Amino acid sequence: MSFEYKMVILARRDLKLSRGKLAVQVAHAAVTCALRAKEANKDWFSHWVDEGQKKVVLSVDDKTHMIRYFMIAKTHGLTVCMIQDAGLTEVAPGTTTVCGIGPAPEQEIDRITGDLKLL
Amino acid sequence: MSFEYKMVILARRDLKLSRGKLAVQVAHAAVTCALRAKEANKDWFSHWVDEGQKKVVLSVDDKTHMIRYFMIAKTHGLTVCMIQDAGLTEVAPGTTTVCGIGPAPEQEIDRITGDLKLL
Repeated sequence: MSFEYKMVILARRDLKLSRGKLAVQVAHAAVTCALRAKEANKDWFSHWVDEGQKKVVLSVDDKTHMIRYFMIAKTHGLTVCMIQDAGLTEVAPGTTTVCGIGPAPEQEIDRITGDLKLL
Repeated sequence: MSFEYKMVILARRDLKLSRGKLAVQVAHAAVTCALRAKEANKDWFSHWVDEGQKKVVLSVDDKTHMIRYFMIAKTHGLTVCMIQDAGLTEVAPGTTTVCGIGPAPEQEIDRITGDLKLL
């Protein structure tokens, strides 16, 4: 099995979210980016779905670190999204928790986030 | 802020997945159910997205326990999906890791999964 397309989700290490909370935030980003790509970039979206929707969660230090990658990906014309939590439980309302990039060809993503570690 | 619609993702407690792996599995289920609902149940899907895509991760004991809820939800006509992992890292190939139910009205989901605990 090999993948040519993937989506990455950057998660802030400084927030120390619980397992369940982190999973929900990552899922928010994945759904949001997938729906945007389905409209804006049908070709990459379809390839990604057909291959099995590869997703990878990467770790960033904090909000500033996350926004840096978000802006670079956006400038490169990739599908991006930023998730703000409603803050009902673990974090303050409006806290930016994760950011999604893609789906896009692996090398397009790796060029931007290749130096980040897996969560 | 209140929600009338939600999606739940059931995650197997017995697999003891890492934080990142769990988040990816939950995101697979969320994207798969969202795309299915967008085709099959546009009305519930749109309400759910407009409200902010509420998602909740619930805990099940094992595969048998998970399939029981999956079958009940399916029988009730709700959007469902079951995720099998490619098994490249933490689990054997083809392991069923999580199951998604919804989006659907809260009470429709709670009638089926209301006895399950948050992950």
